[in-house]
Amino acid sequence: MKKIISVLVENHFGVLTHAAGLFSARGFNIDSLAVGETEDPTISRMTIVAEGDEKTLEQVKKQLNRLIDVIKVIDLTEEDFLDRELVLAKVRIDDKNRSEILQIADTFQAKIDDTKKETVVIEITGDEDKIKSFIKKMKPFGLIEIVRTGRIAMGRK
Amino acid sequence: MKKIISVLVENHFGVLTHAAGLFSARGFNIDSLAVGETEDPTISRMTIVAEGDEKTLEQVKKQLNRLIDVIKVIDLTEEDFLDRELVLAKVRIDDKNRSEILQIADTFQAKIDDTKKETVVIEITGDEDKIKSFIKKMKPFGLIEIVRTGRIAMGRK
Repeated sequence: MKKIISVLVENHFGVLTHAAGLFSARGFNIDSLAVGETEDPTISRMTIVAEGDEKTLEQVKKQLNRLIDVIKVIDLTEEDFLDRELVLAKVRIDDKNRSEILQIADTFQAKIDDTKKETVVIEITGDEDKIKSFIKKMKPFGLIEIVRTGRIAMGRK
Repeated sequence: MKKIISVLVENHFGVLTHAAGLFSARGFNIDSLAVGETEDPTISRMTIVAEGDEKTLEQVKKQLNRLIDVIKVIDLTEEDFLDRELVLAKVRIDDKNRSEILQIADTFQAKIDDTKKETVVIEITGDEDKIKSFIKKMKPFGLIEIVRTGRIAMGRK
């Protein structure tokens, strides 16, 4: 089962690689990892999306909580959350399909960040399903490059 | 000087923590890290924003290129690039300031993801300056929680 774990850590980078390493050492298949500042600049938040069983996850959570620089481990999968990801997609474009591509982007409330004669860079944010569906729609035109942030999530309560 | 480095790696998670660890071992102050899939699902892209001097960065780049699972290291700071970050901000809201907050969000082309009686979750994407300016505007209202993806970047050429 896919898990979204949010880990608050003191802003020393060593602890981030250590904490992330605990997941891979336990055989978790990590889909994405996003690390950014929080409302307190001395604290970073790491959002990890990983696939693994409940029991192993419990062990990783325990190990994380034991690290001195780890402040809090939150399993967002256990609560009601909203998740979002940002994706930049460079798509091949020509005069024939230009309006079609721009129209699809518009349907997804995506922004056009850069246009060239033969390419367009589209910026889209959304939850997992929306991003998946957007990429599927764009693939036939030719996806030259995709840069993804990985998912972040926030509890709704 | 702030550097944006994009590292393409084979999709084994161990290599990500290893590669990121090289930066911290060399004393780089890492601002953010974002890891996501690319157009090829067997390859992940890691975007690192870090502060450090040119010489040390050259050493880290060399070490990265030596790792078997590292496919490509791109120093985006050396070229023309666009950068974006996604931020979810939970802001304290009341009947008096509600319209003001929603208006500011609108000015920043931000989306409202969740509204409660006393809080609102605002989703914003932008480059470094835009995000900084948005957070500054929202701070006086009361920022309860911020979740950031870290910056991603794409060369414009």
